[in-house]
Amino acid sequence: MRLAELSERSGVSTATIKYYLRQGMLAPGRRIGATTAEYDESHLRRLRLVRALIEVGRLPVATAKEVLGHVDDHSLGRTIRLGAALWALPHGPDPDDGDETVAAARREVDRLLETLGWSTARELGELSPDHRALVVAVATLLRLGYPWDAELMAPYARLMHQAAIRDLDFVETHPSEAEKVETAVAAAILFEPVLRALHRLAQEEESARRYGL
Amino acid sequence: MRLAELSERSGVSTATIKYYLRQGMLAPGRRIGATTAEYDESHLRRLRLVRALIEVGRLPVATAKEVLGHVDDHSLGRTIRLGAALWALPHGPDPDDGDETVAAARREVDRLLETLGWSTARELGELSPDHRALVVAVATLLRLGYPWDAELMAPYARLMHQAAIRDLDFVETHPSEAEKVETAVAAAILFEPVLRALHRLAQEEESARRYGL
Repeated sequence: MRLAELSERSGVSTATIKYYLRQGMLAPGRRIGATTAEYDESHLRRLRLVRALIEVGRLPVATAKEVLGHVDDHSLGRTIRLGAALWALPHGPDPDDGDETVAAARREVDRLLETLGWSTARELGELSPDHRALVVAVATLLRLGYPWDAELMAPYARLMHQAAIRDLDFVETHPSEAEKVETAVAAAILFEPVLRALHRLAQEEESARRYGL
Repeated sequence: MRLAELSERSGVSTATIKYYLRQGMLAPGRRIGATTAEYDESHLRRLRLVRALIEVGRLPVATAKEVLGHVDDHSLGRTIRLGAALWALPHGPDPDDGDETVAAARREVDRLLETLGWSTARELGELSPDHRALVVAVATLLRLGYPWDAELMAPYARLMHQAAIRDLDFVETHPSEAEKVETAVAAAILFEPVLRALHRLAQEEESARRYGL
């Protein structure tokens, strides 16, 4: 397809597409003339992802570029490539290393991961921004005086693992490695609000079943 | 306990506690002298919740007051009281009613809820901000050209329902009605970051198990 059609189908203006091309966020089309190029479904797919990152995830262009750089880095193994792309997404603040409550939260998280047998998560530890985010969230609970109970949390973690298995099964339905990584990044941005809303709706539903309206 | 001890145990300064008292966000202590009052565990619990709303949830004081007003409204049934408190928490933007994609998203959400047999969620519909948030999230997927597949989503919704059952079981371990509602509100603010981090960590773990690092 030509630029005009790519613009129409992606909902991204031609000026913005040209900007993404200059930034290297979108691969050049196949040249078919001095001033025209031909684009395909891979360009459309990439533009969808760029919109997800910038319009929905509200990433600055520089951060989106970094994420896409990891998506496109074929030298990495899949877990690392995926990890690098997902880790480049914005995360909350890092845990404060000097803080006693943070140290206690770290021990709790480590104990939970041991109980769960999540050995990679333990091994990567705070290299992973998601591990750091968990430490921060647990430290916040502890700081406010709410209880943290690994016994209570492990079943939630197992539910999330079941969700993760479905996530990866879905990612694997995509044929190419590029699509797999792109899908995983898009899902992280677009799918979390769906899950959160489903969780809250399920709470309302369950509450109504138990206590009536 | 006296004000000084309440301040120390809650981590909230005495000046701020006095402000919350004036705002009606904290019940007055039991008067034991012209200038002194006695506080108990219920005051400590309430201060924890106020900190969760304001420091962690970043709610403006007026919104926190509104949420607490619902928590304290004993005239309501539990689901409605809980719902009113949780619904008063900040939510994302509402769906745009004139939009075709939103209309399509509404149909998809309704079909999903029908498949799930979540009759209260269907009945309340967009009265619930969580229903509206789901419509917005689905409309965003559709707008960007990502597929929405109710078959694919129903199992996720069922996992979230299992989480919700655990949430309510946990809420029910608290003896008083006040504690039940307070716990549910605190959990909505403090617990969602834990779940999100667990989900992402589970994805990393599962990816490493399938593909290595």
